[in-house]
Amino acid sequence: MILTVTLNTAVDITYRVRSLRPHTSHRITEVTERPGGKGLNVARVLAALGHRVTVTGFAGGATGRSLREQLTGSPGLVDALVPVSGPTRRTIAVVDTTTGDTTQLNEPGPQTTPAEWAAFQETYEHLLRSASAVALCGSLPPGVPVGAYAGLIRAARATAVPVLLDTSGEPLRRGVAARPDIVKPNADELAELTGSHEPLQATRDARRRGAHAVVASLGDQGLLAHTPEGLWRATPPRRVHGNPTGAGDSVVAGLLSGLVEHLPWPERLARAAALATATVLAPVAGEFDREAYEELLGRVPVMVGQPV
Amino acid sequence: MILTVTLNTAVDITYRVRSLRPHTSHRITEVTERPGGKGLNVARVLAALGHRVTVTGFAGGATGRSLREQLTGSPGLVDALVPVSGPTRRTIAVVDTTTGDTTQLNEPGPQTTPAEWAAFQETYEHLLRSASAVALCGSLPPGVPVGAYAGLIRAARATAVPVLLDTSGEPLRRGVAARPDIVKPNADELAELTGSHEPLQATRDARRRGAHAVVASLGDQGLLAHTPEGLWRATPPRRVHGNPTGAGDSVVAGLLSGLVEHLPWPERLARAAALATATVLAPVAGEFDREAYEELLGRVPVMVGQPV
Repeated sequence: MILTVTLNTAVDITYRVRSLRPHTSHRITEVTERPGGKGLNVARVLAALGHRVTVTGFAGGATGRSLREQLTGSPGLVDALVPVSGPTRRTIAVVDTTTGDTTQLNEPGPQTTPAEWAAFQETYEHLLRSASAVALCGSLPPGVPVGAYAGLIRAARATAVPVLLDTSGEPLRRGVAARPDIVKPNADELAELTGSHEPLQATRDARRRGAHAVVASLGDQGLLAHTPEGLWRATPPRRVHGNPTGAGDSVVAGLLSGLVEHLPWPERLARAAALATATVLAPVAGEFDREAYEELLGRVPVMVGQPV
Repeated sequence: MILTVTLNTAVDITYRVRSLRPHTSHRITEVTERPGGKGLNVARVLAALGHRVTVTGFAGGATGRSLREQLTGSPGLVDALVPVSGPTRRTIAVVDTTTGDTTQLNEPGPQTTPAEWAAFQETYEHLLRSASAVALCGSLPPGVPVGAYAGLIRAARATAVPVLLDTSGEPLRRGVAARPDIVKPNADELAELTGSHEPLQATRDARRRGAHAVVASLGDQGLLAHTPEGLWRATPPRRVHGNPTGAGDSVVAGLLSGLVEHLPWPERLARAAALATATVLAPVAGEFDREAYEELLGRVPVMVGQPV
């Protein structure tokens, strides 16, 4: 199975309001709610691609219970979340139906104790034994040490399980130094890590810092992959309009599924780019349009470059 | 016991953010959560005044379960909420810590079926038998008939239980016609009901429409009571700054506790006005500052008027 880790799981709530005006009162016309946090999104896409997936991380409080109940209804996912005493965070996306713009409100996540962190590590090391690959995704809840991902990467490497890291800031910086197989920063995360806004130079620098392969997700400009096997760029076959939420998580699912299926890099990248585009096209944030995915898959241009 | 009815209970969530800017992403610095809906707020104040209180209305879903768990910790309150299949709504107050302003996002509440509404009415009629007074508070969830409060008022009157109504719009209009003992509109609700922005005339008109007594809560201008026993105005003893959320609910608690204690109207109004001011002064929305309340209680000017 593929293991995805979401230390800061979330209940993702979307509110539709007619027009968001600060300091006034709003009647919400539509509420949707789903289990969230990057690793859970990745897991859902992997399951939809036919992979067996186990999800771990923390869940707690009434929100955590609600999240786990909703996970029960997700086919192909095994829930191996670890209980935490604090409540799982909510994220609120307020969609202004007049402008189409979204305002995001993110709770910080549960305060996590050293004992809870130790319990998680034990569960993680147990799960690694039957994992074909692992994805470490998203932010850390308060109380989890900033070097958490570095430790989890070392544990995966010690058991020879390929590990992908998708996070930002200091947890990314420390994680990269622990030599993960793949990191998948977006343009901002890559620039923050390396100090360079030039993707070719920045992905090379991220490899120098420890990552074996770097796949940068650059929005409309597609994916730039700097790997031991070569340099590639996968471009979206067409410009699409829609909701980009979850597109990065679909890239992770594409890369990870391609890895465990032993696909060559160009095919992994084509799959990841097609999934990301199909995610932007889906009406519900974080899901992908399967028909669009299958149609796009054969039409992603992947160009090979000279390593610089 | 005193019975309070909250058909559209809520989990009231308060978020503090540094500065709310539409179409950007915000990290919430502080989250607080408490059981809400006007009738639950009224019940908490009544319990703090030493009364035995039973709360009923609807609760459902993960939010309803969380609300009921939090109620368990409220001393003096008996939970007689009726299960509903849809989820209890959330209300989100986003406090901008830079300006102090609040932006409100209110979910609509659970879709309620005729069978659920019938189950509620049965519970209500059972509870009425041991009630000394009943307060009907707040909005109606989707699916509950707009004449709901009128029916509940007639049931209370049939069992000779004094009934107070605190709602707005069409449910208020229909409820007033069913001849409740007291209605407590604010200035906007009163103007919407009667078409008059002149409180003396509007309270008189609201009595003509069926209410035995009308107590209008007019913010800084205090309370105006038009009753069969006379006309009074209770003025806040001093201007205060703070959070007015829940001040109207404290007025209801003051009026209802005064009613069951058989206090004369001027004392009921003094208590209600002192509680409202002490609620504005409390740091947590919907709670009251007990020390301030006791100090203010003897200093509320209540003037008697000539009925017009």
